[in-house]
Amino acid sequence: MKNVKVIVWGMGAMGSGMAKMLMKKKGVDVVGAIDIGAKVGKPIFEILGEEYPENENIKIGTVEEVIQEKAADVVLLCTDSFTAKAFDKIKLIVENKMNVITSAEEMAFPQAQNPELAKKIDDLARANGVSVLGTGINPGLIMDVLVLVMTGACEDINHITSRRVNSLSPFGKAVMEEQGIGISVEEFEQGKADGTLAGHVGFAESVGMISAALGVELDEVTQSMDPIITDEDRVAPYGEAKAGSVAGVSMKASGIKDGKELIEMDHPQQIEPEQVGVNTGDYVIIDGNPMVNMVNSPEIEGGVGTIAMCVNMIPQTINARPGLVTMIDLPIPHAILGDFRDQIQEEAKIVK
Amino acid sequence: MKNVKVIVWGMGAMGSGMAKMLMKKKGVDVVGAIDIGAKVGKPIFEILGEEYPENENIKIGTVEEVIQEKAADVVLLCTDSFTAKAFDKIKLIVENKMNVITSAEEMAFPQAQNPELAKKIDDLARANGVSVLGTGINPGLIMDVLVLVMTGACEDINHITSRRVNSLSPFGKAVMEEQGIGISVEEFEQGKADGTLAGHVGFAESVGMISAALGVELDEVTQSMDPIITDEDRVAPYGEAKAGSVAGVSMKASGIKDGKELIEMDHPQQIEPEQVGVNTGDYVIIDGNPMVNMVNSPEIEGGVGTIAMCVNMIPQTINARPGLVTMIDLPIPHAILGDFRDQIQEEAKIVK
Repeated sequence: MKNVKVIVWGMGAMGSGMAKMLMKKKGVDVVGAIDIGAKVGKPIFEILGEEYPENENIKIGTVEEVIQEKAADVVLLCTDSFTAKAFDKIKLIVENKMNVITSAEEMAFPQAQNPELAKKIDDLARANGVSVLGTGINPGLIMDVLVLVMTGACEDINHITSRRVNSLSPFGKAVMEEQGIGISVEEFEQGKADGTLAGHVGFAESVGMISAALGVELDEVTQSMDPIITDEDRVAPYGEAKAGSVAGVSMKASGIKDGKELIEMDHPQQIEPEQVGVNTGDYVIIDGNPMVNMVNSPEIEGGVGTIAMCVNMIPQTINARPGLVTMIDLPIPHAILGDFRDQIQEEAKIVK
Repeated sequence: MKNVKVIVWGMGAMGSGMAKMLMKKKGVDVVGAIDIGAKVGKPIFEILGEEYPENENIKIGTVEEVIQEKAADVVLLCTDSFTAKAFDKIKLIVENKMNVITSAEEMAFPQAQNPELAKKIDDLARANGVSVLGTGINPGLIMDVLVLVMTGACEDINHITSRRVNSLSPFGKAVMEEQGIGISVEEFEQGKADGTLAGHVGFAESVGMISAALGVELDEVTQSMDPIITDEDRVAPYGEAKAGSVAGVSMKASGIKDGKELIEMDHPQQIEPEQVGVNTGDYVIIDGNPMVNMVNSPEIEGGVGTIAMCVNMIPQTINARPGLVTMIDLPIPHAILGDFRDQIQEEAKIVK
């Protein structure tokens, strides 16, 4: 078998992280990379800032140059958060008969917010004999797959709490702006009202995955977003919040079944949480038979986690039946320390 | 679709627990139960001690009475720990064209200790168009699947520690005897030498699953078993250990790659651990990028966990391709609160 061929679409933090990770792995090659603007035409090592003797120094190309029929086994699409924005790109990749893995948060379970687009993607993927997966650290692992895996040990469940308390300090300027770090409470409320502050994208998808897997139809899912107002000045590498301003966003969601909360999602994100005595961590708390009381502390860092999840799911996506697939349809995620080709099944959709 | 039909083979603690759990679930029926000796011919509710209006009060039968061609969609086999002992029963079920889920620990990854029998089971299952899965809480979830799921967020890994610190106090007399509770250190060493003390069965399988999924061929796997000697008297419901005697078994294993330990397994089991300041829990500690530092405390109780895992994996096993399958081949485990039939795929191997 030839090496698994991968195209990376979007050379921001996520895409270039995936390209770097792939270059350290065996049996897999980055055969193309796509970006826009000044990056087009530049050698990939100029963008990644590193090289490996066995890796070809390909050039960053345009969509038209790189997305060709069967040019790769899989395209890692890291350009969007929302299904509607990613749809045309996914369509183009699929029609060129390549599998897709995307970090777009809504694509982790597009059935939740875009059932019609999900159906279209499923139809397109089936017609072209390829698979489309959305994954990442969250949604994709911490607040859905990990929760579900622990329910596997349960006979019955009364209530689930999924909590991710994380630090925004490692993130760059873009995330600081998206999350409203340092703005006033009035600006926060304005941004929330006019939709310019999205906060975490993924609750609908995580709750959707959990309820679909459990086989429960929820009555309703409510969601809230509130500012985390700091009472002391906080300074992170790429953002700061003066006392009285916004140091982060607290998001909660609640999945109701038969008038009672079945699923509670709790996701406060802020800069410098340790400064105010907040310990970060990922929690799965299940009131059921048996009880589950799990914490991973500190939390799994979102950037590297998303990069790893997208790369590590390459074999499962290539091996999958054609169509739109989700993390609840595929074999368990895991790291790959050996050769990627050993993880591909004989009958899989590999470019021959 | 008709209800999913299940036969339970072995009405001990595990099998009768699974039968009880199934009777509370929707879209699935226990259609047969097998045991030996005095239980044969008795109504199942006499053994289970409970009933539900919609459940038929079937009688416990013999193998010959119950194992008939396509009598059920799946047989839950809960009679053995070892592949060699379970083999003839699995063969009989598979030749009667029914899927198998077994709690036999070695069957979680029979490739590890019985590669020839694993090949035979795979051939038989393929020839008969059914699937065979071994699962449970450990092996099956805590010291393998959960570890692997967390590695999904990792770019690279230097070292993995999987630790399960559990209490034997909830278990019955059989486990007390198997684990040597209350015997002298000399008796322990004698039992270890002559093979009458097995300790935990599953390290070879868990390490095998982890290394297979990561794509690593280990140089060697070493394993040790030592007595946990108590320095104060301990009393559990079904066993006791005087000061100076054996209160439990400490098992360790080490998977070596390129002369360095890659996988460390640590599994001390004892009665009344809290009495001597030992907190129980399930730990996944990964030295990698990123780091993982996870604990579930107290530990998931082994009995209910194994019961739930075997029942909850019924849809994944019915939906699987024919052959021997393991937890690393199938979609993620999860609880089922809804109708079992909703989890079965149209094209699955369901008895029509």
